[in-house]
Amino acid sequence: MEGAVGHFTGQGLASPVRDYLERLHGRFASLREGVVASYIPELAHADPDWFAICIATPDGQVYEVGDSRQPFTIQSISKPLVYGLALEDRGRERVLEKIGVEPSGEAFNSISLAPGSGSPLNPMINAGAIAAASMVAGHSEADRLDRVLSVASLYAGRRLDIDTVVFESERSTGHRNRAIGHMLRNFGIITEDPEPALNLYFQQCSIRVDCRDLALIAATLANGGINPVTKERAVRSEFVDNILSVMTTCGMYDYAGEWVYRVGMPAKSGVSGGILAVRPGQLGIGIFSPLLDPQGNSVRGVRVCEALSRDLNLHFLAPPRSALSVVHSRRSLASLRSKRRRRAAEQRLLDTEGSRARVCALQGDLNFPAIDVVLRNLTENSDTLKFAVVDLRRVARIDDAAGRMLAELVGAFAAQGKVLLFSSAQSHARFRRTLDERVSADGRGRVRLFADLDSALEWCESRLLAEHPLADAPAALIALADHSLCQGIEAPDLAHLESVMTRERFAAAEIVVRKGEALGVSLPVAARTLQCFDEASRGAFGKIDGTQYPAWWISRTETEQA
Amino acid sequence: MEGAVGHFTGQGLASPVRDYLERLHGRFASLREGVVASYIPELAHADPDWFAICIATPDGQVYEVGDSRQPFTIQSISKPLVYGLALEDRGRERVLEKIGVEPSGEAFNSISLAPGSGSPLNPMINAGAIAAASMVAGHSEADRLDRVLSVASLYAGRRLDIDTVVFESERSTGHRNRAIGHMLRNFGIITEDPEPALNLYFQQCSIRVDCRDLALIAATLANGGINPVTKERAVRSEFVDNILSVMTTCGMYDYAGEWVYRVGMPAKSGVSGGILAVRPGQLGIGIFSPLLDPQGNSVRGVRVCEALSRDLNLHFLAPPRSALSVVHSRRSLASLRSKRRRRAAEQRLLDTEGSRARVCALQGDLNFPAIDVVLRNLTENSDTLKFAVVDLRRVARIDDAAGRMLAELVGAFAAQGKVLLFSSAQSHARFRRTLDERVSADGRGRVRLFADLDSALEWCESRLLAEHPLADAPAALIALADHSLCQGIEAPDLAHLESVMTRERFAAAEIVVRKGEALGVSLPVAARTLQCFDEASRGAFGKIDGTQYPAWWISRTETEQA
Repeated sequence: MEGAVGHFTGQGLASPVRDYLERLHGRFASLREGVVASYIPELAHADPDWFAICIATPDGQVYEVGDSRQPFTIQSISKPLVYGLALEDRGRERVLEKIGVEPSGEAFNSISLAPGSGSPLNPMINAGAIAAASMVAGHSEADRLDRVLSVASLYAGRRLDIDTVVFESERSTGHRNRAIGHMLRNFGIITEDPEPALNLYFQQCSIRVDCRDLALIAATLANGGINPVTKERAVRSEFVDNILSVMTTCGMYDYAGEWVYRVGMPAKSGVSGGILAVRPGQLGIGIFSPLLDPQGNSVRGVRVCEALSRDLNLHFLAPPRSALSVVHSRRSLASLRSKRRRRAAEQRLLDTEGSRARVCALQGDLNFPAIDVVLRNLTENSDTLKFAVVDLRRVARIDDAAGRMLAELVGAFAAQGKVLLFSSAQSHARFRRTLDERVSADGRGRVRLFADLDSALEWCESRLLAEHPLADAPAALIALADHSLCQGIEAPDLAHLESVMTRERFAAAEIVVRKGEALGVSLPVAARTLQCFDEASRGAFGKIDGTQYPAWWISRTETEQA
Repeated sequence: MEGAVGHFTGQGLASPVRDYLERLHGRFASLREGVVASYIPELAHADPDWFAICIATPDGQVYEVGDSRQPFTIQSISKPLVYGLALEDRGRERVLEKIGVEPSGEAFNSISLAPGSGSPLNPMINAGAIAAASMVAGHSEADRLDRVLSVASLYAGRRLDIDTVVFESERSTGHRNRAIGHMLRNFGIITEDPEPALNLYFQQCSIRVDCRDLALIAATLANGGINPVTKERAVRSEFVDNILSVMTTCGMYDYAGEWVYRVGMPAKSGVSGGILAVRPGQLGIGIFSPLLDPQGNSVRGVRVCEALSRDLNLHFLAPPRSALSVVHSRRSLASLRSKRRRRAAEQRLLDTEGSRARVCALQGDLNFPAIDVVLRNLTENSDTLKFAVVDLRRVARIDDAAGRMLAELVGAFAAQGKVLLFSSAQSHARFRRTLDERVSADGRGRVRLFADLDSALEWCESRLLAEHPLADAPAALIALADHSLCQGIEAPDLAHLESVMTRERFAAAEIVVRKGEALGVSLPVAARTLQCFDEASRGAFGKIDGTQYPAWWISRTETEQA
């Protein structure tokens, strides 16, 4: 049960995840098909029994079973990393001019150059990887190697090094790769002597990793390019889906189609027996077992990935049910009011007019499909609608597409004489910027942001009430007898209450009374509390723990003490 | 602005989604590259200006701009639908024996049979599609055609028909396809006369659709096989990711790699100018424009899909930020209590012992990465832990992988003398079944389900209290003077209060008092309310709108009336 280092609890409670991985390891350890790679002598020394499974989550949790700390050379799994570096150094379009992104349907060491241009079909075959290595920037060969090694180390979250014995073995026996290098030079894909690019390629393949590193490299890709343990960035996020795309269509050589069909995760295998697979946003997987199938993929690695995908429902095309409904609640002012105390006549007016102000409280992530639902909720049956409040308090993230759509609705509302308001947008700086830009470019409507839902509600109420001036214009303070909380209190008691009341002002966020503490409340405190219902800035209400505190309920005892 | 039928509001408020699609349509309408297909005479009659964009969401909202109701023949877009039918009729393994799933990297009409077996490389090239057609079950040719047409109609959500002119044209000029049919017969992939399969294939290609149909077919695939408007199932959900997988790797002919790179959605194009693209769980897209590029894909269609993917962030490998954190809150009984009224001594005991009961309230969808976070929250620092409550009230869905892991934790807890409880699992029937099965198979621990969090909390409290019998054993009812709500009330008042109190019992869910109605409360009602604090079944508390109603606060007036 124990085996490798447990990062789970250490406290005795077994992790079902770890148990599951142990069972998986046990199940496939007995599978002994395939052969260890022998195309360079050093690889042939691998122990066919080595077998490790590691998974890492985007929040940095790592589970490892088996020989997870056994070092081996990274081989072709270096290809996506160096391709990402080439994208960063030269830009997407320049790299695409030199290296295609079409699957070759051929073996890993096929030459696969496009007819005519001679450009490698994709960066996951050797030809494309050598071309990518030639595009890594640097002042010298040593500098370029250092950059490749540094980037690989950032992905893994620890300093990696080169297995020089394997490197020398690769270099002295890599005749086919050398031929590819010179073909690339012939077609002008590599414009200088190909030897430095070949050297770099042989070295990148000889970077020493272990299975835990593979899981963390995968988790870094799953996490948008940031290593989930060190929190350091290994590759710019804009290139992550490019890397994952070529892994999806070309990462498993001529097994790519079946891999998508059976596993459904971007992946890359290496001839030393490693497989790295990525579930974007969710999981990084590393498997290590040197026994290879005829396509050059780890036999156990493929089977373990199939099982993981099936057991843990990781296929990237499995229909993801949208999580929580994005609309947490949809109400109107007819049923949802601010904490501002209103007179009875005002209350009645809001009872009838309140349906003209709609309130949509949203939750979760706003992406395009989610925002479409939101837009419909805001706009349907909107003939008599005057105000709509979008409350963002429970929203985790607003993506650019959703932000733009939402911002455009401000002008559409204004064009109809309606007003769209937002509350609790504080943590959505990027959306607020989009809002400012779009609304000012549009020239219709204006940005109205409220710190919280309650202040947005109060604003809508005041605007609705202003449209219908009431005959009995409100006094500065509501008379005690008119106060809804005092209904049913006899006149002598009211007079007594009024006689002991004083007018006080409270700073925002000052505590007046706490819910529950009123047991020992004295009449002056009760009066003070009642007063703050009257003056009712929301601040004053917030102080009472968000509850309409029935301050007039004072025990006979207390009253008589006063 | 208006153009096609608007399904959005009809109420004057413009939809930003529709605006966006209109702009997109305008932008690409001027693009006039490419040529109309002419390989069969009928297709050459298409108007090169035809251009429509439709999108449909998994909840059945459809947006259409341009010539969205212009009929055209479905052509190769029928291939994924018929492949799905073959999977249903023959099962996955038998279909995979006959038809591969590897991209051919070749043109749509390439023969692409695997060396040796002669099986078509994948079901999206003509050879694979003809083989799939030969695997559709039926009593007769007419029956098989009817089944294909019915299935296509289920996807589209309306009855589709065959364009017989195009069909005759296909049949009389389809020499290359006829050759393919006989090659398949030669290799034994088709075991009988290939003519009926060819006939069916020509007919399926001649099914008449419009662009709106394409969007709904795509949305049906995005929605796990159920048409989002009619709610009827077109294909079993277990085959949806198979269909989407072959679309991903083989759907766009020899443009597949670049399509994944630039668009990143499973898609299928047809030679009449249609493209269908699917964002699983989120969106179906249909584009129609008959001008084709040399790969046989609609020129505008490809460009529109690239723009949609970029603008709406639809690439399926773009790192999805996990939505809301799956752990809504993590508390312990030290700070979170049931509504059961406890005596002061009990309260103090729970203040110190409460940290031994942990409460994790979860939210959203529980899939594997989410459940990993949950498991860690339940098990870390668990040395002194005795109880853990998992509240599922806010959980939308528990997938099988997550359900199994969670169920296994029950036994792991029991093995350590700890207890794992679940509350609000009512809507998770499948999980409850998994729980029963796993726990009884495990033989450790037992399934403990509570209707709501409050009852689970109360159970934990009682168990913790039972471990530490208090010297002052509780009376059946708490004496009024001991009641925390009565602290600070003078003895004469207490005596008076007690004298007017009666003991009453209330049925579960019976309303005792409503929050806010207590204004006119009489002392008997107040007493009754206090009583129900004492007897405190949770039911009684639920009645008071979930608030600990301070019923002893009775106005002097009221008291004296009593």
